[in-house]
Amino acid sequence: MIKVGIYGYGNLGRGVELALRQNPDMQGVGVFTRRDPKTVATCGLPVYSAEEALTMQDKIDVMILCGGSATDLPKQTPFLAEYFNVVDSFDTHAKIPQHAQAVGEVAEKFGKTAIISAGWDPGMFSLARLYSGAILPEGQDYTFWGKGVSQGHSDAIRRIEGVADARQYTIPMAEAMQAARSGENPTLTTGEKHERECFVVAKEGADLAKIEETIKNMPNYFADYKTTVHFISQEELNTQHAGLPHGGVVIRSGATGAGKEHKHVIEYSLKLDSNAEFTASVLVACARAVQRMNKEGAIGCKTLFDVPPSYLSAKPREELLKTLL
Amino acid sequence: MIKVGIYGYGNLGRGVELALRQNPDMQGVGVFTRRDPKTVATCGLPVYSAEEALTMQDKIDVMILCGGSATDLPKQTPFLAEYFNVVDSFDTHAKIPQHAQAVGEVAEKFGKTAIISAGWDPGMFSLARLYSGAILPEGQDYTFWGKGVSQGHSDAIRRIEGVADARQYTIPMAEAMQAARSGENPTLTTGEKHERECFVVAKEGADLAKIEETIKNMPNYFADYKTTVHFISQEELNTQHAGLPHGGVVIRSGATGAGKEHKHVIEYSLKLDSNAEFTASVLVACARAVQRMNKEGAIGCKTLFDVPPSYLSAKPREELLKTLL
Repeated sequence: MIKVGIYGYGNLGRGVELALRQNPDMQGVGVFTRRDPKTVATCGLPVYSAEEALTMQDKIDVMILCGGSATDLPKQTPFLAEYFNVVDSFDTHAKIPQHAQAVGEVAEKFGKTAIISAGWDPGMFSLARLYSGAILPEGQDYTFWGKGVSQGHSDAIRRIEGVADARQYTIPMAEAMQAARSGENPTLTTGEKHERECFVVAKEGADLAKIEETIKNMPNYFADYKTTVHFISQEELNTQHAGLPHGGVVIRSGATGAGKEHKHVIEYSLKLDSNAEFTASVLVACARAVQRMNKEGAIGCKTLFDVPPSYLSAKPREELLKTLL
Repeated sequence: MIKVGIYGYGNLGRGVELALRQNPDMQGVGVFTRRDPKTVATCGLPVYSAEEALTMQDKIDVMILCGGSATDLPKQTPFLAEYFNVVDSFDTHAKIPQHAQAVGEVAEKFGKTAIISAGWDPGMFSLARLYSGAILPEGQDYTFWGKGVSQGHSDAIRRIEGVADARQYTIPMAEAMQAARSGENPTLTTGEKHERECFVVAKEGADLAKIEETIKNMPNYFADYKTTVHFISQEELNTQHAGLPHGGVVIRSGATGAGKEHKHVIEYSLKLDSNAEFTASVLVACARAVQRMNKEGAIGCKTLFDVPPSYLSAKPREELLKTLL
C-alpha cells in the first residue's frame, strides 16, 4: 500500500481523493489545508492543518501537491521536498527549469524524489512531443488546445466593468489542424491555431457593445485571436456551461526515406469532461512511480520524461508484457 | 557518436540505414547479411557477411536486428545478445514473454542490454495502452489497425490457385471507432472493428467467382470479417497499390468522479506512408536508449515500458525541460 497525502483541497485535491479510490494499491491518508480544517468537507478523508503534515512523515509515502502554479507550488514543492517524496502539477511552462532547480536542490539534499509538472500539458502532451520528436527528428510539432474552458481567460473577462460572470472556451481551428496534418509543415501562430468563444453575463444596464469591444481588444488574451462574444443569462451560464471540460491534440508530422518521400503523422489527443480530475489521475499514477524511484535510489527532481512508463502502472511486469505490449 | 550495425537488410534494414542519417549523434557501421555481400546494394553503408559481425564487437555499440519474427529473431536476438547491445522489432504478441526470457538470459549473463519488440505495435501502441491504463484504471482499451496493407493477408491471397498477385488493406470501421469513443465501453471483436479490402490480379482464365469465395471463407484470415474483393490488372496493382502504408489508433475511454460522471477519451493515432521506415525510426531511437542504459548498468532484456522517455531523445535534459515539457 502506497500511503498518499493531499496538500491543498480545491478541484484538483478533490480529484486526487477520488482517483485514489480507483487504485487499490494506494491509500489516502488525509487532506492538508491552510484553511480551518473544520471548514473543509472532503469525500471522506480526514482533514488536517497544513502544519500537521510535518509531524506525519512516517505515515505518508508520497505527498501530492494540489495548489496553484502562480504562488503556491513555487514555495510549497521545494519546502515539502525536505520531508516527503512529492508530486506536483506546476504548469507555468516558462518557469519549469527554475522550479526544477529549486525542487531538485532540496530533494537531493534530503534523499527525496519529486516529480514536477505532471498532468496533461505539461505532462501527457509533453510526452507525446518527446516521443514523436525522438522517432521523427525531421518534422514539426503542433499543439492544439481545446475545445475547453480556459479559467485564466474566463477570469480576465470577469474583471471587465459591467461583467457579472463569464466562461471562455478555447477552440482549435479545423483548417489549422488540417494544415498541421498535411505534412507541409506550415508555420502557425497560437492565434492562427485557435479561436476564442466567450459566454458573458452582463450586469443590469451594462454597455454590452463596450464589454464586447474590451474583450476583443484585450492584449495577449484576445487581441490576436478570432473572438466571438455571446451575452447570456446567469441561469443559462449555470446550466449550460457548468463543467470544466478540456483537451486538445499534439500532432507531429515528419518524413522519412531517401528523399523524404514518406510522410508520417502522429497524433495524441485528449477529450476530457473534467480537466481537474484527469490531471489528478495523472498525479496519482506519478505517486506510484515516485515511491518506486525513491526506493531504488533515484533521488532528486524528475519529470515524466525520466519515469520508465511501467513505473506508472500497478500491473506486474509479466502482465504488462503479456497483455499490453 | 553511437556506432550502429544493421543485421539483415530488407525493407526494415534499409529503413534503419536511412533513419540513421536523420540522427547526427549516430553512425551506421555496416550492414550484415546472410546473403552474398556482393549481391546486396545498400544506400551507402558497407556490407559484411553475418559471420563477420562477431569480429567487430569493438566497432559496434548497438546492433539493430532487422529480420522477421517468425524464424529469424527468435534465434538471432538471443544469439547476438552475447556479443552486442541489441534492438529488435519482434512482433509475435503471444510469444513476447518467451522471447524476453530467452534474450534476457543471454544479455544478463554477458552484461548486455536488449530492447525487444520495438516498433509501433508492439511499441508505440503498447506505450499508449500502458500510459492510458495507468492514468484511467477504470476504462476500456480499443486498438484499431489501418487503413494499411497487411502483408500476411496479402500473402495468403497470393497462395490461392489462379491468383497472380494481391494486396490486402485492413480498414477500421467508422461505426466501431465511434462506439469506442462513446464512453459506453462496448465489447468489440477484431472482426467487428475492421473490414478487409482485397485487390487481386487473377491469372488468365482463372475462375474469379471461386477465388472470391475462397478468400471470403478463409478461416482466421477473412471468414470473420466483412471482406470486399476487387479484381484489377497487374498494372493497376503496380501503380495504385505499390506502397506499404499502415497505421491505426489506440483509444482508451475511461471515467472519473464520485459517480464516474466524467468521461475521458485518450487517443493515439498513426498514419504512416511506410510501415517499415517508421518501425526503423523507432528502432533507431531505441538504439540510443539501449546504449545509455547499458552504460548505466541496466543490463538484461528491456522493452519500451522500461525506457525513461528522455533516453530516446538526442536532446539534452535542459533543452527537453525548456522546449518540450
